[in-house]
Amino acid sequence: MSNRLPTLAVVGATGAVGSVMLDILSTRENVWGEIRLVASPRSAGKRLTVRGEQVEVQALAPEVFDDVDVAMFDVPDEVSKEWAPVAAERGAVAVDNSGAFRMDPEVPLVVPEVNAEQAANRPRGIISNPNCTTLSMIVALGALHRAYGLNGLVVASYQAASGAGQEGIDTLRNQIDKVAGDRTLGDRAGDVRAAVGELGPFPAPLAMNVVPWAGSLKEDGWSSEELKVRNESRKILGLADLKVSATCVRVPVITTHALSVHASFDRDVDADAAREALAAAPGVVVQDDPATADFPTPADVVGTDPTWVGRIRRSIDDPTSLDLFLCGDNLRKGAALNTAQIAEVVAAEFTRG
Amino acid sequence: MSNRLPTLAVVGATGAVGSVMLDILSTRENVWGEIRLVASPRSAGKRLTVRGEQVEVQALAPEVFDDVDVAMFDVPDEVSKEWAPVAAERGAVAVDNSGAFRMDPEVPLVVPEVNAEQAANRPRGIISNPNCTTLSMIVALGALHRAYGLNGLVVASYQAASGAGQEGIDTLRNQIDKVAGDRTLGDRAGDVRAAVGELGPFPAPLAMNVVPWAGSLKEDGWSSEELKVRNESRKILGLADLKVSATCVRVPVITTHALSVHASFDRDVDADAAREALAAAPGVVVQDDPATADFPTPADVVGTDPTWVGRIRRSIDDPTSLDLFLCGDNLRKGAALNTAQIAEVVAAEFTRG
Ligand SMILES: NC(=O)c1ccc[n+]([C@@H]2O[C@H](COP(=O)([O-])OP(=O)(O)OC[C@H]3O[C@@H](n4cnc5c(N)ncnc54)[C@H](OP(=O)(O)O)[C@@H]3O)[C@@H](O)[C@H]2O)c1
Ligand SMILES: NC(=O)c1ccc[n+]([C@@H]2O[C@H](COP(=O)([O-])OP(=O)(O)OC[C@H]3O[C@@H](n4cnc5c(N)ncnc54)[C@H](OP(=O)(O)O)[C@@H]3O)[C@@H](O)[C@H]2O)c1
Repeated sequence: MSNRLPTLAVVGATGAVGSVMLDILSTRENVWGEIRLVASPRSAGKRLTVRGEQVEVQALAPEVFDDVDVAMFDVPDEVSKEWAPVAAERGAVAVDNSGAFRMDPEVPLVVPEVNAEQAANRPRGIISNPNCTTLSMIVALGALHRAYGLNGLVVASYQAASGAGQEGIDTLRNQIDKVAGDRTLGDRAGDVRAAVGELGPFPAPLAMNVVPWAGSLKEDGWSSEELKVRNESRKILGLADLKVSATCVRVPVITTHALSVHASFDRDVDADAAREALAAAPGVVVQDDPATADFPTPADVVGTDPTWVGRIRRSIDDPTSLDLFLCGDNLRKGAALNTAQIAEVVAAEFTRG
Repeated sequence: MSNRLPTLAVVGATGAVGSVMLDILSTRENVWGEIRLVASPRSAGKRLTVRGEQVEVQALAPEVFDDVDVAMFDVPDEVSKEWAPVAAERGAVAVDNSGAFRMDPEVPLVVPEVNAEQAANRPRGIISNPNCTTLSMIVALGALHRAYGLNGLVVASYQAASGAGQEGIDTLRNQIDKVAGDRTLGDRAGDVRAAVGELGPFPAPLAMNVVPWAGSLKEDGWSSEELKVRNESRKILGLADLKVSATCVRVPVITTHALSVHASFDRDVDADAAREALAAAPGVVVQDDPATADFPTPADVVGTDPTWVGRIRRSIDDPTSLDLFLCGDNLRKGAALNTAQIAEVVAAEFTRG
């Protein structure tokens, strides 16, 4: 190993997550040598700015991975599924933001604040980045697990439209424009559904509404998003028996997922001690003084890196449970930031030399 | 007792709940004889329509209760606190929609589909109507309790702006108008807060946001709304040891509260049997086929009477728990309708004669 800075490829540089990734990479110094930008042939030749420099986008092909040390994938599942192994074969460590490999037992699922050590354990040369909903809470839960021993979670989500990509954002904006100004909507049955126009990626109107669905239908009425929250939380925390019930609901917010969490532990908990454990945890900010309206909301959290935690209460009827409300930007920590952090853990292997 | 139809007084006839009450009373035949409308001196002399007839509003005074059999109170807590006992002294049965008497051990808290028999047990001559958030779920939970024996609830709410009265509705409408058309809001920190204008009764922006707060601050960080869900559920179901954790969150919806509920029981549950028990329960509609996007949402439920239940799943890691998503119109079943139903239970005592 040398002191040369490692080479990075960003596959999917032109997408919603890719754009935030370029912003994040531009704030980092002395981590990466060359940064190569890759997307579909449609985007080849486009120029994007990263670290203040214009870089030409290359079409995805095996050769783009030559001499690459780390390759990030911010692309749809099926593209990752085909191409992350190609990058790994050519010697790059693939860090994948899609759902393609998350539950593969030979692929670690990494959140650096919680299980950074798992990044080194990658028999396939691939590391996965968790789903954004799981990421919005898992750093805080990791800190509480270390303090009290987590054994159960009941989660209800308040998920932003941008979790459904740029199409989700555009759909909600258009719907809000259509319902604005009408003083009768929302008071009588049917009006909102008639007024919003296109439903886009959502199965019901999202403006002036909430929609108890995200993802695709899985067994016994569960949505794929709800199963991801369960299965990924278990894998990241290394808790194969963790009891998890999640109900995932889309709300008319552009970006930043919020979660109401009822967390059960092996030991009795204390709200003040929990606040201290959370405040001391890297990547977590405690905002919890209802007397001064101090609690996290998506409108205030969007654009920031940490997980924000508020409304921390010991359950009245169960001294081993805590009730919390959390917010995290689903495009930053929920996607690009965590991927960048994983890649930096790998980069450190190269530069430790 | 005679066959004469009983006389009703509606105190607070000019308010948000009172207006819905007049609509509901207009759909009822052969329940009430005279209907008297009462409000503050500010409204005395106004004419409102009920059952197709114009009725003059009277200023609240002891004499308005003369010869009244049932007096409904749709007024602020402090007005109920003073005047419901006056009505009772004058021989009327007071049915109160405020929070003034709900936890009084000498006042029954009644949901006719769940505990109608409690209406007869009223030593003070007063019957209370539950809080709207509790009412949005309790009819469905009553049916499941009869089937399986309820012992625990974890609730996360998605509460509509109209729960904060007409001021809440107006504030959300104005905020939606202000954020409409702006394609940058919600992507960067702070923008939404700067754009929405007046916060009205909410402690943070509600348009393009969710706000984890409803009511006033009580001990240990709980909101009054969260404690109402716990204490009123216990009282209505007659379950003094029911474990309840609620997190109450306001969402940018005009009317109809939604709830994500994780309910734990004494016995193993089955999702299909639970669906059948709910479908058979009066006042409950099951809407649960995610394959065809069939689940309740506030936009579709507003203006209807029942509690709508969907997303019924047996918890994967606990065969004694169910996960559900419920919607109920907070101004109908959540307020005026349940009060009207209680009053009709009492009216039946008179007409049974
Ligand atoms: N949105 C979120 O909150 C979120 C959070 C966590 C994870 N993720 C995951 O991150 C990934 C990207 O999501 P996104 O929201 O950024 O999607 P997006 O905006 O649709 O971007 C997709 C990117 O993939 C590229 N791409 C598509 N097909 C390709 C192909 N055949 N070969 C090469 N490149 C191809 C696109 O390039 P062109 O521009 O050339 O088409 C674009 O750069 C997905 O797996 C998603 O599930 C998203
Ligand atoms: N909004 C909900 O979702 C909801 C749900 C369940 C229960 N509730 C409860 O129902 C009650 C009414 O709520 P709301 O939303 O209808 O409130 P609102 O719109 O503010 O109406 C208040 C009513 O009370 C009357 N009033 C006020 N002060 C009075 C006084 N000193 N003497 C006589 N009448 C007086 C008003 O008459 P004037 O017009 O003459 O001022 C008006 O008719 C409250 O206790 C509330 O907590 C509301």
